[in-house]
Amino acid sequence: MTSEFDLIRRYFTRPASRTVLGVGDDAALVRVAAGRELAVSTDMLLAGRHFLFEDDPFALGHKALAVNLSDMAAMGATPRWALLSIALPEVNERWLSRFTEGWFALADQQGVALIGGDTTKGPLTLSVTIMGEVAKGQALRRSGAKVGDEIWVSGTLGDAALALAYLQRRIQIAPHDAAVLLPRLHAPTPQVKLGQKLLGLAHSAIDISDGLLADLGHILELSGVGAQICVAALPVSENVRGYLHDEVARNAVLAGGDDYELCFTAPAKQHDAIVRMGRRLKLPLTCIGEITRQRKLVVLDENNHPLTLKEQGFDHFA
Amino acid sequence: MTSEFDLIRRYFTRPASRTVLGVGDDAALVRVAAGRELAVSTDMLLAGRHFLFEDDPFALGHKALAVNLSDMAAMGATPRWALLSIALPEVNERWLSRFTEGWFALADQQGVALIGGDTTKGPLTLSVTIMGEVAKGQALRRSGAKVGDEIWVSGTLGDAALALAYLQRRIQIAPHDAAVLLPRLHAPTPQVKLGQKLLGLAHSAIDISDGLLADLGHILELSGVGAQICVAALPVSENVRGYLHDEVARNAVLAGGDDYELCFTAPAKQHDAIVRMGRRLKLPLTCIGEITRQRKLVVLDENNHPLTLKEQGFDHFA
Repeated sequence: MTSEFDLIRRYFTRPASRTVLGVGDDAALVRVAAGRELAVSTDMLLAGRHFLFEDDPFALGHKALAVNLSDMAAMGATPRWALLSIALPEVNERWLSRFTEGWFALADQQGVALIGGDTTKGPLTLSVTIMGEVAKGQALRRSGAKVGDEIWVSGTLGDAALALAYLQRRIQIAPHDAAVLLPRLHAPTPQVKLGQKLLGLAHSAIDISDGLLADLGHILELSGVGAQICVAALPVSENVRGYLHDEVARNAVLAGGDDYELCFTAPAKQHDAIVRMGRRLKLPLTCIGEITRQRKLVVLDENNHPLTLKEQGFDHFA
Repeated sequence: MTSEFDLIRRYFTRPASRTVLGVGDDAALVRVAAGRELAVSTDMLLAGRHFLFEDDPFALGHKALAVNLSDMAAMGATPRWALLSIALPEVNERWLSRFTEGWFALADQQGVALIGGDTTKGPLTLSVTIMGEVAKGQALRRSGAKVGDEIWVSGTLGDAALALAYLQRRIQIAPHDAAVLLPRLHAPTPQVKLGQKLLGLAHSAIDISDGLLADLGHILELSGVGAQICVAALPVSENVRGYLHDEVARNAVLAGGDDYELCFTAPAKQHDAIVRMGRRLKLPLTCIGEITRQRKLVVLDENNHPLTLKEQGFDHFA
C-alpha cells in the first residue's frame, strides 16, 4: 500500500533551489533577498469546473502552475517558490507521475521550487500558492493606471475561448489548426519575462484570465479611471479570424477567458521602448487604446461607433 | 445576485497589518523583516473527511486557521499572513459570515492578516496557506533531535480522539464534560507562543496532528535517532482518564490525532528552564522520555515493559 508519505517522497520531493528548507517539515523556510518584497498569490482548480477529470494530467500539471505564474507575471515578480495541495479520489500513480512531470517541466524552466503542499483523498482538486520576489515598491499594480496611458495586450486574445468551443463540439476545426489552438487552452504560456521587463515602463498590469473587458475593468476600477479601446486594434489569431464570424470573434476576444496574456498600461512616451522590447522577446505587443478621465469603458467598433457591451467576463458564482 | 467580487469584498477583505498590498490585486505584497526568514505551510481541508458539512461554521473558521498556525508554532515562527481558498456548493451568506467571524476572531488575536485567496463553486473545500517570520537559522526543525535530549509534550493528549468518539456516538459523555471536551476537537488552541519561546531552548519540534507516535516518529526519522517514552508519564486529561478504559485511553494518547499540541526535544540541561517557561505560559509541559541512539521508538508501559505497537497514527491514503 502506498502511503501519503511515500507519495510525497516519490512525486513531490525534488531538490529545491534558493530554499533554506523544502518539503518534509512543518513548514518550508525561504529567504527573500535584500531590497525585495514577496509577491504571493493562490488559485484553486476543481475538476469539472476549471478542468475536466479526463484532461491529460501532463497538461494539467503545466496549467496548474502556469495560471499561478501568470499572476506573478502581472506583478512583474520573479517566481521562486510554489506549494501544491492536491485532493485525489484514489492513488493513481500513472496520473500522479504524468501530472508532476507536467508541473516540473514548467517549474524547472521557470526556476520555481516546490517547497510544500498537502495530499489528501477527495474529489480531484488542486490548490497552488506561488511566491516570487520583486524590487521593493516596484511591483505592477492594478491601481496604477494614469489618464493618457496607452493600453497594451500581449499575444493574441480569444484563442482559449475558441479552443473550448471546439472541445465542446460547438465548432469544427481542422486537425492541423486544432494542434496549434488546443495548447492555448491546455498549456498557456505565462508571460513572466514580459512582466519583469515592464517594471519601470508600465504603470499598471493584470493578467487576462476572466476576459479582456472584465480584467481591464479591474484596472479601471482600482485606478479610478476609464478607457477607450478599438476593436479594430485587438490582436486576433488566424484561427479566431478564420473560424469565427466577426461578431462571435469579437466576443471571444473581448470576453473570452483563459488566455493568460497580460494587459498593461504605460505612458505614451514609452511606446517605442515597449515595441522594441516586444521584438526582443519575440512577443506581439499591441496598443489597443488609452486610459481616459471619464470613468467608463468605451469600446469602439470598426466604424468608430461605441459598442453596447453585454458579456463583461466570467464570474465564478454567476 | 451576489458576485464573487462582492463576496470577497464583503467577507474576506479587512485592513491587513504589516502588509504592503492585500486582497484585490494579482498577488499580495509583503516585506520580510531584516534578519528573518519566511516560514510557509499549507493545508487542505475537505468536508466529509477533515470536517463535517454540518459543523458550526464559526468553529470551522477557527480550526482552518488554527491547524495552520500550529505548523508555525512547530517551527517557532511568528505567524503574519494567510491566504484562504474556499470552494462552496452555493453562496450561503449566513455560513460565510459565521465562518469568517470564526477565522478573524483567531486571526486578530494572533495578528495574522488575510492577504489573498480564491473563491469558487464546488464541493466544500478549504485550502489555507500560512506565512510567518523566524530569525534566520533559528527555526525548530524535525531533524534537530540529539541523543540524550528529553522529549516533551504540551497540554494533554487524546482529548480530540475522545471528542470524536463521542460525536460518533461510540461513547457517552456527560454534558458538562462534553462542553470542555468538544472545543479540543473543534477549536484547538495552536501553541504559537510556546513555539516562539522554544527558540534557543529546543533542538527539534513538531505539532501533534496525526498522533504522538506518528509525529514523534517523523522527528526520529529525520534526526536519525530513536526514543524511549513512558506511558506513565504521558499527560492525560481528566476526561480521557475518566471515560476510557486504560488500554483505550493509552491508544487515544499515543495514536489519537488532532490535538495540535507540540512535541519537542531539548537538552536535559534546559529542563528547569522549560518547566519555568511552562509555568509562565500557564501551559502544562511534560517530559515523557528521551532520545536514544538506537533508531527505534520504545514505549514502556506502567511496569517498564516495552509495549507492542500497532496503531502508529493516521495516513491520509490508508
